Amino acid sequence: MDSKDPVAIIEKTIPIVEKMGVKVVGFRPNYAKLMLPMANNINHIGCIYAGSLFTLGEMAGGAIFHASFDNSIFIPIVKQLSIRFRKMALTNVTVEVMLPTEEAERIKTMAMADGKADFDLSLEIKDASDEVCSILNGTWQIRKK
Amino acid sequence: MDSKDPVAIIEKTIPIVEKMGVKVVGFRPNYAKLMLPMANNINHIGCIYAGSLFTLGEMAGGAIFHASFDNSIFIPIVKQLSIRFRKMALTNVTVEVMLPTEEAERIKTMAMADGKADFDLSLEIKDASDEVCSILNGTWQIRKK
Repeated sequence: MDSKDPVAIIEKTIPIVEKMGVKVVGFRPNYAKLMLPMANNINHIGCIYAGSLFTLGEMAGGAIFHASFDNSIFIPIVKQLSIRFRKMALTNVTVEVMLPTEEAERIKTMAMADGKADFDLSLEIKDASDEVCSILNGTWQIRKK
Repeated sequence: MDSKDPVAIIEKTIPIVEKMGVKVVGFRPNYAKLMLPMANNINHIGCIYAGSLFTLGEMAGGAIFHASFDNSIFIPIVKQLSIRFRKMALTNVTVEVMLPTEEAERIKTMAMADGKADFDLSLEIKDASDEVCSILNGTWQIRKK
């Protein structure tokens, strides 16, 4: 794995996330889209397991970190996260995440000054019909290495 | 796997949970204790990954379901769950879950009448020094099959 390649870092750094099969399907400055395949993540009633849906949302925080900040200076962590399971996920699912440039600049400036800075995200996990299956709200943090 | 054995059901029904290595280390009526091994669940900074900690808490809802209700009549699902990451988990971690008998009776009576009933749990995930690493609050539901 190329340690400079953010897509490889997102998909392969955490072994259990790699086993779930989380994939980066969109990646540009201040934007990422991740996909979670149903096949690896089936639960006891034939839909995607709650812990895998949570992971897709949690990894969106990591993905937008790599899309917005210099990963040679900072690392991301998650502080708290709420998830509501609105509808069973019966197909592969995706999540999109964006961080406006001004917000990314504010976070970076604070983290350079204080060593860390929090950022909040609200996320929707959608199925193949674009229906919202899960809704997440959370707080992540960037920290200077 | 013996389909009547609740410990096997909890540990082996959901493949990604089995890969994380969640184990039942205590199980009696209205009580369960689960363990998550660190080894299978390391993240990018050398502690247990957030999605695995979430899963341990989520599975506590499934475990207390099997410890409290008849799994030939009902199935469990999770509706919403919040997790706060208080301290990095640097050892294997555990979670204990209890449901008072009267509360279990109330839930069962409602589910028999209405086909479903919600129940709330507050949970603490602890490390080997008994320090609280993560705090969860959530709502699960039992449904008649």
